[in-house]
Formats: sequence, structure tokens, C-alpha cells
Amino acid sequence: MRLGIVGYGNLGRGVESAIAQNSDMELVAVFTRRAPEDLKINSKAAKVLHISELENWKNKIDVLILCGGSAKDLPTQTPECARLFNVIDSFDTHARIPEHFENVDKAAKEGNNVAIISVGWDPGLFSLNRLYAGAILPEGNDYTFWGRGVSQGHSDAIRRIEGVKNAKQYTVPVEKALTSVKNCENPTLTTREKHTRECYVVLEDGADAKRVEQEIVNMPNYFADYDTTVHFISEEELLEKHSGIPHGGFVIRTGKTGFNKEHNHVIEYSLKLDSNPEFTSSVLVAYARAAYRLSQEGQSGCKTVFDIAPAYLSPKSNEELRKTML
Amino acid sequence: MRLGIVGYGNLGRGVESAIAQNSDMELVAVFTRRAPEDLKINSKAAKVLHISELENWKNKIDVLILCGGSAKDLPTQTPECARLFNVIDSFDTHARIPEHFENVDKAAKEGNNVAIISVGWDPGLFSLNRLYAGAILPEGNDYTFWGRGVSQGHSDAIRRIEGVKNAKQYTVPVEKALTSVKNCENPTLTTREKHTRECYVVLEDGADAKRVEQEIVNMPNYFADYDTTVHFISEEELLEKHSGIPHGGFVIRTGKTGFNKEHNHVIEYSLKLDSNPEFTSSVLVAYARAAYRLSQEGQSGCKTVFDIAPAYLSPKSNEELRKTML
Repeated sequence: MRLGIVGYGNLGRGVESAIAQNSDMELVAVFTRRAPEDLKINSKAAKVLHISELENWKNKIDVLILCGGSAKDLPTQTPECARLFNVIDSFDTHARIPEHFENVDKAAKEGNNVAIISVGWDPGLFSLNRLYAGAILPEGNDYTFWGRGVSQGHSDAIRRIEGVKNAKQYTVPVEKALTSVKNCENPTLTTREKHTRECYVVLEDGADAKRVEQEIVNMPNYFADYDTTVHFISEEELLEKHSGIPHGGFVIRTGKTGFNKEHNHVIEYSLKLDSNPEFTSSVLVAYARAAYRLSQEGQSGCKTVFDIAPAYLSPKSNEELRKTML
Repeated sequence: MRLGIVGYGNLGRGVESAIAQNSDMELVAVFTRRAPEDLKINSKAAKVLHISELENWKNKIDVLILCGGSAKDLPTQTPECARLFNVIDSFDTHARIPEHFENVDKAAKEGNNVAIISVGWDPGLFSLNRLYAGAILPEGNDYTFWGRGVSQGHSDAIRRIEGVKNAKQYTVPVEKALTSVKNCENPTLTTREKHTRECYVVLEDGADAKRVEQEIVNMPNYFADYDTTVHFISEEELLEKHSGIPHGGFVIRTGKTGFNKEHNHVIEYSLKLDSNPEFTSSVLVAYARAAYRLSQEGQSGCKTVFDIAPAYLSPKSNEELRKTML
């Protein structure tokens, strides 16, 4: 399976390393908007090309993995690429998924290609678990907790404050809320009761810590609805202790069965990830295998993780899967 | 969707109550080997019929849910029924799945029906999680722990000992092993290190407790390889505290990513079930929906949970799923 990567940030690099873990896959090219000669990649066999050359690779790449951002890149890039290639993206603006799906579906059908959108862990694996659990326990409640992990959006928001040199924000699930959910107490939880926010901030010389802290904790949408703690630290400490991009979370459904709803059940799915982009990339790569196979079967159009039978993700044959994994 | 049940033990009763939770489904008949007039079911609208009448219901039932046992019933019952109906079973003898699959596939194709076998939580949901996690993290280790829960097979084995009036056996994961796995220590665990076995035993009048205990803890295959504790209790206490059929467990995969394998990830799926048969039944019923839809699409043959795209399980439309669950 010949794969291409569009965009070489954290996610693109993650995809590159994930491909190296799968012996049925080969990275043939990385496409970038930067000057290709400025970009150092790890895979010796793969080419680095300017994104304008994409079209020339139409029949030399089986699946293209799009590693751009959901805000500005993917809404146009995924449909454009789906006209030429089978594609995978990690579009994660939940509210705009239906619109993105329609655009990509039209383009993929025109190009007779398979596109799988919104692949990753949320949307992605967490969505799958919400679907499975909800179908199995129709009478119950869903809970999703994120963290402990780094929110890039919240870290960026802090960095935009005057006087802030650098910052990292962790989203942390509230232990008490998690325990209550797991005990089948079916709590109704406010935003504040579900997660706290921990900020590690490096100030510019002479910046007013008190003012920065107030700007953070009162920032609408990002922090005002949460219990937020702000820690001012040195740049050295930030680099030493907070340079990773860990994340994770929990999808929990509790539900009742029995003629008198007398039995409780808890279905819990959780992730604990040292590297959010590398894990997301690993999911993208598994779904690239599925896109390739579906395309080989003659399918086309836009799909999501909901539409893909699990067996398509594995390098093992169906016989082998039944024998060893069922 | 018109459903039928074959066999009315714990699982059959569970399926009956699960169907009542799904408004797009209707139970039309329960088939039994017993005298139908002796069987009291909860659903007023459904008929109770002798299993010999099955053939007459060929076009009146969309999916038949087979609730017999894996040792004696399903190996012949599932192929026989798959010639006439779309069917679901919970065949759980892992080693014999490939053979069962072949037999059912042949029959289902002859009858132009869809059969989904080995549905439940293990095999079933646990298998799905092993597949997904393994495809996403190719370099890693899988761990499955069962419990805390009642093992019917082990309880039965104790009941067969002379001098035992009644007994219940719980399989319990070893906390230390679970912790080590979750901490990415990738331990190699012996049978004894993974689970312990707790037995609650009611003796016949005058039975020799010492002898019974020795027979239990030294029983090959069932107990000899485990740390087993035996508690002798009164029949009243057994009924009061140990009459439920709870179960559950954990599927955990830990794996590494990155060019230097420098990042660890933990994917964990767990179930905590008050009623093993009712939960298994709920899974069977969700897959009955999938079998019906696949059959409507013109598909036939034997499938497993690996072959079913998740969307087929949910009563929601694809648009609704993308909008609300992705």
C-alpha cells in the first residue's frame, strides 16, 4: 500500500512513524506548502514535494493522509484531494462534520475514490464507543471526560495574552465526577463539575502576574466556566516538565436492563496517551488500510468510522482474525 | 423487525427483556424444547411454541436469536436454523469458532440468510477491542482479565463434587497484575498471577469440609493453577448474597509509537455487569438489527462482529449518527 502525507507538522510526523510500524505500507511522498528542500523527514525512501505537485502523483499513491488543521486546511483540502485520491482526514470540528461530509462525499464520488473523515480518537475511537455502547444499552447515560492532557487550543489562548511568553494547559477530569459516573449514580454534571484546567505559564520579563492570572481565569468560553489554577514557572521548567503532548480520556455509558430495570451495567473505554499526535496518527494509518481495501472492492464516497467494518483495519486475514482474536 | 427466540433459559429471558427496550423490534415467538404450555413468558403479544414448529415461521420472523448452549445446542442448531432464518448466536467455544463458522456459512448461503455468530462480550465486544487496539498499535501487548464475576462452568464443577449441595465461584483479576499492565510494564503473567478464584460452597449434611476443599483447590484445569479460596456458608447466605450473575472484565493493549518507540499508550476497555446474561442478550439484540439490515441489502452468509460496520447496530440513521455521535 503506497501512502502519501499532506502536511508535515506533529500529525504528519506521527503518520510517518506509524507507517514505519506497518510492514504492508510504504510512505512514498510527503507534500508540503513549505519549500521542500527545507524539510527534513525521517524516511529515506520517501520524496518531499511541494503541494502543487500533488496532481502528478494521482496513480502512484493508494491513499493520501491529510494532516492539516480542521479550521483552515481540511474544509477545502479534503474535497480537493478526494477528487484525485483515496483520502483520510482527522477533521474534528464536531459541529461542522455534516457539512464537511457532504462536500467530501460529492468530490469522492466524482473521483471514484474512498474518503474517510474525522478519524482519530475524538472524533474517532470515542465516537465508536459511544455508538456501540448506546446501541447495546438503549436505556442509559453517556459521559465523556477528556484528560489528563494538553489542550493546544487552550494553551494557544493563554499564549495570546499580553505578557505571556509561553504556556501549556492541561485539561483534567474531576475524580469525584468520574467516580460518581462509574458507580451508576447517573449524575447531571455542569461543565465545572466535569473538568478542571491547570495552566503552566512563563511570563515575559516585567509582566504583571496578577493581571495575567485574572485574564486567564476569566476568559470566556476557554476558562470562565471552569475551576482553573495558574502556575507561573520558568521557561526551563516548562521545557523540562511540560514539553510533551500527552492526552487521553474516558467514554463511559451506564445503563439498565431487566424487566424491572433492576440491573446496572458500566461500559468504559479509556485512553492514556503519551503523545496525542502520534496516537491519532496511528488511528489514521489503520483507517488508510481500510480505505485502500474498500477502494479495491470498488466502493467510493465519504465514510466515517461508523461505516467501516472493524476487519478492514487489521493486516490479518478474516480467517486469521476469527482464529486468533475472536 | 420481527424477532424470535430459540431457548428460554437465562439468555432467552434476557433477550426477551432487551427486545422490550428497542422500539423498532417486536418479539413474535419463543421456541422451546419443553412443553410450551409449561413456559411462562413476560411478553403478552408473543407466542410460545414447540421447537418443532420452527419451519412454519419461515416468513414470519426476520431474525431468530439462538439462546442455546455452545457445547451441545449451537453446533447443530445454528446451521439448521440459518437455512431458514437470519440468525444470531453467542457461540463461545473459542477454539471451535473456525469450524462453526464454516458450517454456518454454508447453511446461511444455501438459505440466502445472514448469520452472525459468537456475539456477546467475549467473544464479542472484547474481541472487537482486541482487533481495534491491535490494528492501531501494531507494536504492543494484549491483556484480557475477566471478573470479578461468576463463572458458571467453575460453579458447576464444584457442584459435581460429592458432599456439595450448592456453590458459586467468582473469577477475580489480581489487582497487582492489572496495575502493572496499566503502567506499561508489559509483564509476562502466569495463569496464577492473573486471576484468583473465590468459591462459596454449601455442604450436604455431614459432608467432610476438609476433603471438599482439597478436591476443589486441586481440581485440574479448573482450580489447580490458581490461588483458590473456599468459603463454606449456609444455603440461606448463598441465596441472599450470591444469587446474582454479575461479570465483567478488562481488555487492555499497551503499545509504543515514535521513531524511537519513546511514547507509551494504553487502550483500555472494561465492563462491569450486574447481569451477565442480560448484558450478553443486549449485545445479541443489537446485532440482530444488523443482521436484518444486511439481509435487506441482499447479503448472505456467516459473519462475526469483525465484519459488521458499527452503524448497522444503531437504530439511528447515518445522518443522525454523524450529527450526534461522531
